[in-house]
Amino acid sequence: MSGMIVESEVQVRYAETDQMGVAYHAAFFPWLEVGRMSLLHRRGKTYGQMEAEGVCLPVVEAHMEYLKPARFEEVLVIRTHVAEVRQASVKFAYEVCRKGEEAVLVRGHTVHVTTNREGKTIRMPEHVRKMLAHQAED
Amino acid sequence: MSGMIVESEVQVRYAETDQMGVAYHAAFFPWLEVGRMSLLHRRGKTYGQMEAEGVCLPVVEAHMEYLKPARFEEVLVIRTHVAEVRQASVKFAYEVCRKGEEAVLVRGHTVHVTTNREGKTIRMPEHVRKMLAHQAED
Amino acid sequence: MSGMIVESEVQVRYAETDQMGVAYHAAFFPWLEVGRMSLLHRRGKTYGQMEAEGVCLPVVEAHMEYLKPARFEEVLVIRTHVAEVRQASVKFAYEVCRKGEEAVLVRGHTVHVTTNREGKTIRMPEHVRKMLAHQAED
Amino acid sequence: MSGMIVESEVQVRYAETDQMGVAYHAAFFPWLEVGRMSLLHRRGKTYGQMEAEGVCLPVVEAHMEYLKPARFEEVLVIRTHVAEVRQASVKFAYEVCRKGEEAVLVRGHTVHVTTNREGKTIRMPEHVRKMLAHQAED
Repeated sequence: MSGMIVESEVQVRYAETDQMGVAYHAAFFPWLEVGRMSLLHRRGKTYGQMEAEGVCLPVVEAHMEYLKPARFEEVLVIRTHVAEVRQASVKFAYEVCRKGEEAVLVRGHTVHVTTNREGKTIRMPEHVRKMLAHQAED
Repeated sequence: MSGMIVESEVQVRYAETDQMGVAYHAAFFPWLEVGRMSLLHRRGKTYGQMEAEGVCLPVVEAHMEYLKPARFEEVLVIRTHVAEVRQASVKFAYEVCRKGEEAVLVRGHTVHVTTNREGKTIRMPEHVRKMLAHQAED
Repeated sequence: MSGMIVESEVQVRYAETDQMGVAYHAAFFPWLEVGRMSLLHRRGKTYGQMEAEGVCLPVVEAHMEYLKPARFEEVLVIRTHVAEVRQASVKFAYEVCRKGEEAVLVRGHTVHVTTNREGKTIRMPEHVRKMLAHQAED
Repeated sequence: MSGMIVESEVQVRYAETDQMGVAYHAAFFPWLEVGRMSLLHRRGKTYGQMEAEGVCLPVVEAHMEYLKPARFEEVLVIRTHVAEVRQASVKFAYEVCRKGEEAVLVRGHTVHVTTNREGKTIRMPEHVRKMLAHQAED
């Protein structure tokens, strides 16, 4: 399994904290995006390139479990993998930890449909499917 | 059921759009927060007052289904209700529509534990439970 | 002067606070945007309509002075006026106060050029100039 | 001069774009923060450490000039330096470019006062002044 997981790093910005002294819960969504974008890039194409070619991946479902807080300045590792590829959708799963620590802070997934640039759902192009379903070592 | 639902309004800001020309998926989380805060306020206490009294409600789970996009300048209605109250947690459920339209754009829920200001989970104080479990007309 | 000023209200969201316990400085920019959008709307056209007609107003300069902090749940009043209209640019000036209080929390301005949808600077169309330079009571 | 400038990198996130297809103007403020934080870290202390020791640097003035847009996925370089140190304030100046390009996209500065954790202005402690006024090569 580990060969399929892509790791990305972010550092918690002051902008992302709230008055509870921890990272605001919605701040994790752009971080998962960082993980997803890294995975696509590592599989051969950036999301910007995909979008330019007319394949978009808007989010249709998002789920998050917050186990422990993240704090200002902490370096977080986002572990992303493709959990499922279907005819017109893909599910990414994520775990977020502090760098160098094992404990999972946040666990979640997002589901995305493939659409054209006008937002109409399209069947996933074969080269995108291959890219996402790629099982080899990264 | 309708007596238990609190409605709040937000207008989509330019800051909340992305280059797909729609509201970015994470923008909905602060809007659900607006709904949740209105509900608490309508039940008798603002979240700021609760926090000042030592009862915090950090998010431990969030789930969202995105059915249709929201766009710049649209006025959205957030319908919030308390879906479940437990010993040390509360679940809020939400629906987001365009004002004056029936179609649901986004449906979701968040689960929150009761903690003290140091982040330690505490049993939900009785007055908070009563406030949240309140079934009468708002 | 008062007839030219448009007042808008926002309430500080938890998402907009930081771990200093106040609104994060960048949170004010979307609020100024709310003020600017209200002013345009009050002068006869929403920014969305302007953009659909091919006139965009990207920010080319922003300046802010932070005199006092804003805090969670506070209702803020944004007072916006058109400070200057030129051939291909407009300057908006702003003051942000707590509702019902006189003390200014933040004072600032933004300068915007008129561009087409491709981002090319264009001479400000006459109807936009009239709308912005409008001196009568709102 | 070059020895005093600290360079940091960020990559434009989808969350930071708007429907004009470029980075939203307020997105630059967290990026300048990244630059400022790197500079402090390189001078010997993270901002989190400073804050824990009771020295805060809230923003009292911010100024930005937007010369060219930044776009999704671009890697930006933030060049930060200390422009002025006074009794109870410090001014940081910034330039943002695309990595590998000379053209400046955004130029700006922020002014910060030294306060204690309660937000009261304090004279800048001598070790902080030395750290900020440090002229040697980084």
